[in-house]
Amino acid sequence: MRLRVDLIPREELSFSDVVLVVDVIRATTTAAAFLEAGASALYLTPSIESARAFKDEDVILGGEVGGLKPQGFDLGNSPQEALEAQVGGRTVVMSTTNGTKAAHLAARSAKHVLLASLYNAHAAARLAHELATEEVAVLCAGKEGRVGLDDTYTAGVLAEFLQLMGQYELDDGALVALSTRRTYPDPLEPLSLSAAAQALKQVGLEDDVPFCAQVAKSPAVPLLVGRSGEALIFHRGTSQRSSQVGIPVVS
Amino acid sequence: MRLRVDLIPREELSFSDVVLVVDVIRATTTAAAFLEAGASALYLTPSIESARAFKDEDVILGGEVGGLKPQGFDLGNSPQEALEAQVGGRTVVMSTTNGTKAAHLAARSAKHVLLASLYNAHAAARLAHELATEEVAVLCAGKEGRVGLDDTYTAGVLAEFLQLMGQYELDDGALVALSTRRTYPDPLEPLSLSAAAQALKQVGLEDDVPFCAQVAKSPAVPLLVGRSGEALIFHRGTSQRSSQVGIPVVS
Repeated sequence: MRLRVDLIPREELSFSDVVLVVDVIRATTTAAAFLEAGASALYLTPSIESARAFKDEDVILGGEVGGLKPQGFDLGNSPQEALEAQVGGRTVVMSTTNGTKAAHLAARSAKHVLLASLYNAHAAARLAHELATEEVAVLCAGKEGRVGLDDTYTAGVLAEFLQLMGQYELDDGALVALSTRRTYPDPLEPLSLSAAAQALKQVGLEDDVPFCAQVAKSPAVPLLVGRSGEALIFHRGTSQRSSQVGIPVVS
Repeated sequence: MRLRVDLIPREELSFSDVVLVVDVIRATTTAAAFLEAGASALYLTPSIESARAFKDEDVILGGEVGGLKPQGFDLGNSPQEALEAQVGGRTVVMSTTNGTKAAHLAARSAKHVLLASLYNAHAAARLAHELATEEVAVLCAGKEGRVGLDDTYTAGVLAEFLQLMGQYELDDGALVALSTRRTYPDPLEPLSLSAAAQALKQVGLEDDVPFCAQVAKSPAVPLLVGRSGEALIFHRGTSQRSSQVGIPVVS
């Protein structure tokens, strides 16, 4: 099996098998938290406007522009808020700056698209490993077209979990991500140093960073199951193996 | 001072101050070797065809397509061959796949463009540090639009040298590059593992990799001084400080 890590989304990228989309601060962490909180479906839209088009009394709108909750939205892009939200059995429609774009890019060509973060890293890696036939790809969202330390680190954690489950042939991006993972024993350090965390700090939302730095706390993995207009529809993916036996959790 | 590392060239990138362009296997290593061997000028052309247009009895053509010497060229893209070539006082015209493109991208907006490799890492970092007023940027050529372990590692070595000379505010790319540098004590390991080295092996040119893995062996730094048509003209840049006192060499 091959493991490929792309540190920045680019228009020319295409994927054939399984893609783990990573925007750890905060979109893919928040997405997992919504499903962990019991949301029945998650819609990812490419713009704030297209998210608003889904507005309905049974639908929760969540997302951000410049880190902040867009006008008319029910929730921002905070994973803590998502986990505590009354979303049981409801549909959540999300739109964010970098993570949503990366997910749409992956969805253009991949067979399976999953949303991964540190929070669901273990479960996401396991589901990807089970679904893949040739290649697992990790697509890091980065920040406005530049490499993110936070997403690169998360890709390294995913790579480490995948290597515990099987033999993977690693590309250059995977080796760079693993190097970054090994440099920082405490996930909070690279996440706090990242440009994404610095940007959150500027709008007073840095309290979300420690939530995003929790590793393998949730088994909820958003898995692409279809589309509705411009929106990608994710449901909670189910692994064949429900126990987590045999794979150590990063502390 | 800021240190910025871009792990892949993208059309949208722009630079305002000093850029170190890195394509360690092999273009920027070979470029330094040509100047080390005494070439008076180095022309970098965006295509093999535009290199051929400079053909003249006083001009040496060097470069590669798919790793191999193009038809009608005097030399390939081998740094060992460049170092041993009879180029004293002559102009060398080079065209290569990834490195040349990155140099042209940097030249669109940067005030100073230098070609850096492990081979001239020390001298290149010092010259960049002396020329910069706000920011030193490292632009990794990568390989066909993907991150290269070899170039990322080299960016980390340059970052380490720069940090020995002054205080730098590091971006996410710089922290990723430094992580990669610290993961591999022996430069030959990441270079050999890279996709660039694997591609050389497929055409039987893997003997160039150990040459490219030599750190801080040459004081020759190609510095952009002008243009001739589509070609970028590099001369050997001169540092204000000729000694290398006070900065340890990576072993």
